Amino acid sequence: MPVSHALIQEFIKILSPNQVLTEEADRLSYSYDAAVLTPKIPALVVAPSTEEQLGKTIKLAYENDLPLTVRGSGTNLSGAVIPEPGDSIVILTNRLNKVLEINQEDLYAVVEPGVITSQFAETVAAQGLFYPPDPGSQTVSTLGGNVALNAGGLRGLKYGVTKDYLMGLEFFDYNGNLVKTGSRTVKCVTGYNIGAMMISSEGTLGIFSKIILKLVPPPKASQAMMAVYDDINKASETVAAIIANHILPCTLEFLDQKCLKYVEAHTKAGLPTEAAAILLIEVDGSHQAGVDEDAAKVKDICTKVGAKDIRVAKDAAEKNKIWEARRNALPALARAKPTTVLEDATVPRSKIPAMVAEVNRIAEKYKIDIGTFGHAGDGNLHPTILCDRRDTEEFKRVEEAVDEIFDVALKLQGTLSGEHGIGQAKAKWMVKETNQATVDFSKNLRRALDPKYLFNASKKII
Amino acid sequence: MPVSHALIQEFIKILSPNQVLTEEADRLSYSYDAAVLTPKIPALVVAPSTEEQLGKTIKLAYENDLPLTVRGSGTNLSGAVIPEPGDSIVILTNRLNKVLEINQEDLYAVVEPGVITSQFAETVAAQGLFYPPDPGSQTVSTLGGNVALNAGGLRGLKYGVTKDYLMGLEFFDYNGNLVKTGSRTVKCVTGYNIGAMMISSEGTLGIFSKIILKLVPPPKASQAMMAVYDDINKASETVAAIIANHILPCTLEFLDQKCLKYVEAHTKAGLPTEAAAILLIEVDGSHQAGVDEDAAKVKDICTKVGAKDIRVAKDAAEKNKIWEARRNALPALARAKPTTVLEDATVPRSKIPAMVAEVNRIAEKYKIDIGTFGHAGDGNLHPTILCDRRDTEEFKRVEEAVDEIFDVALKLQGTLSGEHGIGQAKAKWMVKETNQATVDFSKNLRRALDPKYLFNASKKII
Repeated sequence: MPVSHALIQEFIKILSPNQVLTEEADRLSYSYDAAVLTPKIPALVVAPSTEEQLGKTIKLAYENDLPLTVRGSGTNLSGAVIPEPGDSIVILTNRLNKVLEINQEDLYAVVEPGVITSQFAETVAAQGLFYPPDPGSQTVSTLGGNVALNAGGLRGLKYGVTKDYLMGLEFFDYNGNLVKTGSRTVKCVTGYNIGAMMISSEGTLGIFSKIILKLVPPPKASQAMMAVYDDINKASETVAAIIANHILPCTLEFLDQKCLKYVEAHTKAGLPTEAAAILLIEVDGSHQAGVDEDAAKVKDICTKVGAKDIRVAKDAAEKNKIWEARRNALPALARAKPTTVLEDATVPRSKIPAMVAEVNRIAEKYKIDIGTFGHAGDGNLHPTILCDRRDTEEFKRVEEAVDEIFDVALKLQGTLSGEHGIGQAKAKWMVKETNQATVDFSKNLRRALDPKYLFNASKKII
Repeated sequence: MPVSHALIQEFIKILSPNQVLTEEADRLSYSYDAAVLTPKIPALVVAPSTEEQLGKTIKLAYENDLPLTVRGSGTNLSGAVIPEPGDSIVILTNRLNKVLEINQEDLYAVVEPGVITSQFAETVAAQGLFYPPDPGSQTVSTLGGNVALNAGGLRGLKYGVTKDYLMGLEFFDYNGNLVKTGSRTVKCVTGYNIGAMMISSEGTLGIFSKIILKLVPPPKASQAMMAVYDDINKASETVAAIIANHILPCTLEFLDQKCLKYVEAHTKAGLPTEAAAILLIEVDGSHQAGVDEDAAKVKDICTKVGAKDIRVAKDAAEKNKIWEARRNALPALARAKPTTVLEDATVPRSKIPAMVAEVNRIAEKYKIDIGTFGHAGDGNLHPTILCDRRDTEEFKRVEEAVDEIFDVALKLQGTLSGEHGIGQAKAKWMVKETNQATVDFSKNLRRALDPKYLFNASKKII
């Protein structure tokens, strides 16, 4: 391990011996994330537990030219926290895990980056408030990671994603100086909108130490249902029809037959495995009458477009069972084959029927196995390719299929990534969606804020 | 005029003779904005009418070291479009005024920066959709200016401000290259969140050419009312009580007695000039029953906290008359004295009672005339100082009072500016709210994106 003994001692002076991990077993644990990419073993892993330790750690690492990757729980799907090559350092946020303030009058919370998403949501719920972003990995993921990747979730359609809840941010720049942006107020235009720039910056522009998040009053009524289809196109057309009718469900999820089969095998939640596709729909609001009216309209649209069955959840438990199954779509599919390539190309919502049809065409063309699920209401599908990376010939077809999925998404005025991030996985496609001037502008911006290119250098913009 | 004849000819070649204004009368027209600051006369004013002309204009100006200010309608209140000193150029967006697309299925619009805010809102309303941001200057202001300043409005409490509606942006960098960020999809994490960084950047980082804005379904029901108080503190306490009860009206505006008197004299809208303060409250939603329930709760809270009268608007016309009067608060106050200094210090909503009390204490301490109105529900008050700038002694007290208003806002965990921007007016207070590291970080960012410091150089960060 080439990082010098003297330097390690300096880290130990800032932190403590048990916060500086140098054993190979420890370093191996932090060499990968949830993306299908080659792991890299860092030279050093450190776990600061205070803001001061974090600042000093960054300063020392930067001064010593150590490539630096900050890691929450490593649940991202784009390789965003795979360590950098060479003598690199991983900074864990797991000890920076305090909820510092929950303000019930002004509806915000202040947290450290290592707080677990669902634990935070439960804590604020216990105080009668609501933090809507609920990424699939919420029981493991951290709020810092959610901000760094702009995590979405099942409620994005109505409630938005992580960026819609960021009010303020404190972070360390490459000098180890603390930058403060945003406010505890709902409006703030003091200085540049730097917090928003840090959203989805994937650890490349600065290292978060404190996050101010907006909270909202929880809905007082809701109704959840499952619409079952024997024609996949009718399911996707229903999605477009609901939005076009100006109804904004909080959840509008899609699963095709392949997903249904694998998820049911994994979860035994009672999904209709014989269906061509299903939609999971939840409407909510602050008044029962309004929710009832919306639910009736949604049912009517589903029926008209051609759902063969609509099953209304009779209570929260019944709903949670199905929703939990949906959250387990990825692990369920991952059990099917050795390699799971999960994409998140996103299109304008009205293009969902076209996108679903194109994905199935591509699966056939390249003779590969694709199960599709996702946040259909957001136009955000997750076509998931089940394959075996060791089968070189097959994996080449998989890569060609992924290319074509992106091409189709862009042709439909969509985007490469709705919520999973660019990371290492998609950086090479950036120019295709934007242009060279945009990539140059972004590099220029990045170089100013990280002149040595040490902050997660191989990620986001290349 | 020191800009060379040859250079003017080059601009005329890109544009046309009538798009390049060099007469003194023209240049004087663009020497000021709505802030109380010293005008500066630009050397040249140009009005490109196509994206291509805009890009070439920027490139030519930058290559020739011309300080450059982009101007919409000049309605901002922070000196953000006062031209730069020296041989500077003003680029008008008034000919870049096309609505390029309104997408009813996917709920977005694509516009050029010079489109007038309220005209746009009317255009989308005619298609059954809703663009909520409604700054006081909406009948004159441009959407480009709204993005550059992150304009708020009367509906911010429930619907958010301009930043909440920006989906994508195309802008020219200092090389005259077109940068593309964001998407027509509701979720997009491709590349840095550059669009959000451009929000409230006040023309200092790039020049907008195309804006993608989110639209929403309009509310189907609403109820508006005016709560009248004989004690200003009871009015401000009502604001905090409504939010603490988890009701989010779309509008929750405050006017004190001084404002009421001037506004009534100006508008004859029927405001209760004998009241100590009033609240204008509107609740809306997609269902009548829910709106009725919210309205009843709001009335109940107003009564309990101590409103002496609650007047419910019987129809839209009656509401619009009062709302329009509120929008005219600034011009009404501006008629009272030669100089109007309008502030927009913002605090967490629960601190509104404390802030109102402090503003009145400061008015008394410095013996100055302050009328206060504003978006109380957002914690965003506009204490407006009525004075005469030519009275040097009085204006010194005004400046000291403004300093103290900012100090108080920051002590209450608030911010220097909720929505009016930093511009020239507030740049010197930036460090007070954040810290030197934040200003340094911002300068560093800015220098990378404008190496010659020609983009509105004296604004935002100094």
